[in-house]
Amino acid sequence: MRVGIVGATGFTGYELVKILAKHPVFKINCLTSTSLAGKPYSYVYPSLRGVVDNIIETDDYEKCAEKVDIVFLCLPHTASQEAADFFISKGKKVADLSADFRLGSKELYEFVYKVPHTKEHLFDKAVYGMPEIFGEQLKNADLCAVPGCYPTSVIMPLYPLIKEGLIDSDYIIADCKSGLSGAGKTPSDKTHFCSVHENFQAYSVLNHRHNPEINYILGKSGKSADVIFTPHLVPMAKGIASTIYTKSHSDLFKLADCIKDFYKGRPFVRVLEFGSVAATANVRDTNFIDIALFQKADRLVITSSIDNLIKGASGAAVQSMNVMCGLNETSGLL
Amino acid sequence: MRVGIVGATGFTGYELVKILAKHPVFKINCLTSTSLAGKPYSYVYPSLRGVVDNIIETDDYEKCAEKVDIVFLCLPHTASQEAADFFISKGKKVADLSADFRLGSKELYEFVYKVPHTKEHLFDKAVYGMPEIFGEQLKNADLCAVPGCYPTSVIMPLYPLIKEGLIDSDYIIADCKSGLSGAGKTPSDKTHFCSVHENFQAYSVLNHRHNPEINYILGKSGKSADVIFTPHLVPMAKGIASTIYTKSHSDLFKLADCIKDFYKGRPFVRVLEFGSVAATANVRDTNFIDIALFQKADRLVITSSIDNLIKGASGAAVQSMNVMCGLNETSGLL
Amino acid sequence: MRVGIVGATGFTGYELVKILAKHPVFKINCLTSTSLAGKPYSYVYPSLRGVVDNIIETDDYEKCAEKVDIVFLCLPHTASQEAADFFISKGKKVADLSADFRLGSKELYEFVYKVPHTKEHLFDKAVYGMPEIFGEQLKNADLCAVPGCYPTSVIMPLYPLIKEGLIDSDYIIADCKSGLSGAGKTPSDKTHFCSVHENFQAYSVLNHRHNPEINYILGKSGKSADVIFTPHLVPMAKGIASTIYTKSHSDLFKLADCIKDFYKGRPFVRVLEFGSVAATANVRDTNFIDIALFQKADRLVITSSIDNLIKGASGAAVQSMNVMCGLNETSGLL
Amino acid sequence: MRVGIVGATGFTGYELVKILAKHPVFKINCLTSTSLAGKPYSYVYPSLRGVVDNIIETDDYEKCAEKVDIVFLCLPHTASQEAADFFISKGKKVADLSADFRLGSKELYEFVYKVPHTKEHLFDKAVYGMPEIFGEQLKNADLCAVPGCYPTSVIMPLYPLIKEGLIDSDYIIADCKSGLSGAGKTPSDKTHFCSVHENFQAYSVLNHRHNPEINYILGKSGKSADVIFTPHLVPMAKGIASTIYTKSHSDLFKLADCIKDFYKGRPFVRVLEFGSVAATANVRDTNFIDIALFQKADRLVITSSIDNLIKGASGAAVQSMNVMCGLNETSGLL
Repeated sequence: MRVGIVGATGFTGYELVKILAKHPVFKINCLTSTSLAGKPYSYVYPSLRGVVDNIIETDDYEKCAEKVDIVFLCLPHTASQEAADFFISKGKKVADLSADFRLGSKELYEFVYKVPHTKEHLFDKAVYGMPEIFGEQLKNADLCAVPGCYPTSVIMPLYPLIKEGLIDSDYIIADCKSGLSGAGKTPSDKTHFCSVHENFQAYSVLNHRHNPEINYILGKSGKSADVIFTPHLVPMAKGIASTIYTKSHSDLFKLADCIKDFYKGRPFVRVLEFGSVAATANVRDTNFIDIALFQKADRLVITSSIDNLIKGASGAAVQSMNVMCGLNETSGLL
Repeated sequence: MRVGIVGATGFTGYELVKILAKHPVFKINCLTSTSLAGKPYSYVYPSLRGVVDNIIETDDYEKCAEKVDIVFLCLPHTASQEAADFFISKGKKVADLSADFRLGSKELYEFVYKVPHTKEHLFDKAVYGMPEIFGEQLKNADLCAVPGCYPTSVIMPLYPLIKEGLIDSDYIIADCKSGLSGAGKTPSDKTHFCSVHENFQAYSVLNHRHNPEINYILGKSGKSADVIFTPHLVPMAKGIASTIYTKSHSDLFKLADCIKDFYKGRPFVRVLEFGSVAATANVRDTNFIDIALFQKADRLVITSSIDNLIKGASGAAVQSMNVMCGLNETSGLL
Repeated sequence: MRVGIVGATGFTGYELVKILAKHPVFKINCLTSTSLAGKPYSYVYPSLRGVVDNIIETDDYEKCAEKVDIVFLCLPHTASQEAADFFISKGKKVADLSADFRLGSKELYEFVYKVPHTKEHLFDKAVYGMPEIFGEQLKNADLCAVPGCYPTSVIMPLYPLIKEGLIDSDYIIADCKSGLSGAGKTPSDKTHFCSVHENFQAYSVLNHRHNPEINYILGKSGKSADVIFTPHLVPMAKGIASTIYTKSHSDLFKLADCIKDFYKGRPFVRVLEFGSVAATANVRDTNFIDIALFQKADRLVITSSIDNLIKGASGAAVQSMNVMCGLNETSGLL
Repeated sequence: MRVGIVGATGFTGYELVKILAKHPVFKINCLTSTSLAGKPYSYVYPSLRGVVDNIIETDDYEKCAEKVDIVFLCLPHTASQEAADFFISKGKKVADLSADFRLGSKELYEFVYKVPHTKEHLFDKAVYGMPEIFGEQLKNADLCAVPGCYPTSVIMPLYPLIKEGLIDSDYIIADCKSGLSGAGKTPSDKTHFCSVHENFQAYSVLNHRHNPEINYILGKSGKSADVIFTPHLVPMAKGIASTIYTKSHSDLFKLADCIKDFYKGRPFVRVLEFGSVAATANVRDTNFIDIALFQKADRLVITSSIDNLIKGASGAAVQSMNVMCGLNETSGLL
């Protein structure tokens, strides 16, 4: 199957290209970028010299559509709406890595992102790209809204517990820490090496757009959830670690079993042995999510870790597209 | 005044030496170490070549006592008990950087540290080395229990708020992140560069000995507090950032004013303008603590940052000793 | 083909395991370690949970020999001699990642390593594991001496130029920089995060054992070479970058062509376009070596970069074993 | 004495401000910036909240001249020419941290920097700000050209040896490595954390503007020198380490003594005991330069280390200004 990546030169595009370059079924046939069209992809990412030397094309969707069967959109939010609509109308399967179709409705999207949503009709088609939870819907989907990186690390451990009513879901705290690649490739004061190195800090406190996404998706469990989410920047390139605080009257075995049962047969979820913590280094460059649980009286602490660019973006996109295309969920990811 | 540092070659000893080398009143006259006696101090820390070349002496307390007026103990817990007792008996003023006198009673200490405390009589003499809260007691003290690094970052923002009853103190979460120097100088798998670099993880979840210290000291406010504390390792050398979650029905101005009023005239406490976060880089190599508050409905998030080896250890020790000796609190620290 | 790794728990063992876990022909059937026998491999490297859970076995060579066809030795030098002799005598093909068989003769080895060599008869059998140079000999070899990491980065760019007499080979300077994984997994003061982070320094100046290896192997070109080599530690985990200084009267095109021609058809050698430099990030986690040339009058500067654990150790070992087993050189490595 | 810093918000300005905030004689009275005028300095560098809250002023030289006795120029090259001329004409003493007056003549400057020099008459006034070598001239100078960071690390060890004719000065190699702050504060792809972290590479090979500066200044020893210089970026914030290769027929004691004698009484030069290497961590946040020598037959290797922003820029500027103002060379720097 021929694949296109629209907006291929950012960090998520790069991870996608690396995954797809080794995928047994999907074959890269079109890489686009407005600013870098005409250059070989390996000019932008010299690590891929001799591996992915495809010439980057302009963002000409018509031309791209002729060359591909499936499309990954690595565009800023709002830009994705138009592109998704176009490629869907051409009968392509689309995985959108932006936030444009994650929030379920025009109203919520516009409330959170403060910009208009012009493709309301697609919300019904879009399935949240978390195959471990929404795999059945994904099988028949043409459009997948790839989850945010932080939400993945928070939703996956909590969803089964909330669904089963095992935890107190109206005051959950998710203290999340991310490597710098989460901030994107555009240079700024905040991404300057000297600002990041030997520094640790929170940002967007009580004000980050992934917070409504977390609560909205957890709400699909049938129970409402109220998570307070704080993101932080860690002086490292890749990885998210989340520490989640809640209360429960169930014991640790029951809680761990609940998660294990829910994700039974799901190869990318690893519930750790008691006593171990989830560390970002253990999931780096993989599509795994590691989950660990700790309990003292009624207090429950959960740690989870993912690679923000893989399970938190491009890996989840490929995993979802695998499901959408009837392939094995793990194709190209193990 | 002549100063001795017992156990001078660890990281807290090194920071003490650097501070004291520039102190206007305290003069280093004795540096001890069991393993490195006989070497110049600058052999152990070559950055101090030509600055502190004092020959390291053995841990001979008698000999040390003859040469000094005040003593800083940078020993492992339990070892400090003996040393503190000895130097106090010789009429010296002592700042103990270990945990031996922080917890107020033999019973609590033994419960938390699982080892006997053999100098129970000193608990009455020991004052917690946080001059911004216990300054009055410190003025007359001979023995100061220098606070733990994490507790400093958690207690200082919370103490005024709990004292004034402005926050819900029975379910506070303190999610704390520390640079590697907090793990001490002894090499281990956990401190190997390749284990730390490009990694982030929690440790001692629901099981760290600073948790009882936090709750015990906050209890001195007159109100009990129940903090859940999780420490994490950040791939950086120095700094602690804490993110603290609680609830309050007061507004943000009142909460900020409460903290500002409590610490009025205290030069090392900086309550940040609204919107700013506390970052470790901003307090690196200083004795400052930065505190920032964020609120949404009844949820309150506080971020604080310190240099774990300075305000979180050696700076607090010098600051406390300044007070104990009748000097300006800031001597040698600004 | 069944594979054993003896001494599998160090950094080179870990990289080997990761490569072999995806190799199309070689299948891990025995992982040994003296200190960690009995544990699952994923206990030591939790990143491999669910991927490589093999139980680590003791260093019982007899037992190991029954289970494998080929063996990788990740042992300290001197320990490898015995093991190589044993497995060779059992008809196994052996790749030795230590220095024991790199230097061509008992005399040179003992001069450089200051310990006895007890398996002199194996020197004739051992081929230096650099398929791009010694591929023909490797085809029929049973024992391969995997090159040192630094020598790989220095020898590969220089060998063709020296062979063709295009550079001044009697005063070459190789200023080499390595990430910390090159120092091995054993914790020490030197590998402590706080010693490495935000630090850069040379070590073993004019006194490193890779220097004779570089000169000895370059001498196989038919011309003698005298390289002065200085290793440095970079605050990063993986990668070697070498900057090499020499003189030449040939022009840059001729020099670049010489290297390109020599390595024609060799997929892991990338000679960069003029103006680009070799960066460690571009070869991280790959078996590539990047080479770039710069010239001003008669001065020639060459930069090269490799992943010290892959092209500089485990990747080269697999690449060599591929050749020894009649497989495609790139099996499992692209 | 009242001090102004023109262009105070870059990295060298920040280091200057930190040094001057503690200087016993120089008092900051004017900080300027075109883009950040009107903000408190501590808004730009929040680490200085409560320490340096001066309001940043516009680049109005007239106004600045009224408020200060001495001026530090932290401007891009070419911009410094105008400013230096203005402040000199007003009778101020000026330390220029740009390259505008380092190269001794309009011709050489224009050849190297490819821009016109419009203040040729100032070359005669300008003294190279390396008090250990040009201290006598500095005493009477009104204008000091603060040396480049790399040149400082290369010139200081070599100057005495070349002057005394103890080394082969026509083929010296200086392989130099710098932390990222050397690249300046402006964000770019090259300074993005994800480009720098876990990466090491050369840049401007055989083409860096500090190379002519090195050769020009070494030539003032009375002997010509031909140094080949290669700069590299290290994934750290601060520090330069240089490894210098040359040949000598003198023995190591004589060579070390030559350097020690030349710098006798100079507190910031530390010639290390044999066997030690110069490490950046040992000079971080200080005005020291560490120098170590290694020899094997006629090959001589010298390692040196400085803090690129202090001894390599702002520290040297203050040290030079101390001399120009008749103060102790070390004022504010120890």
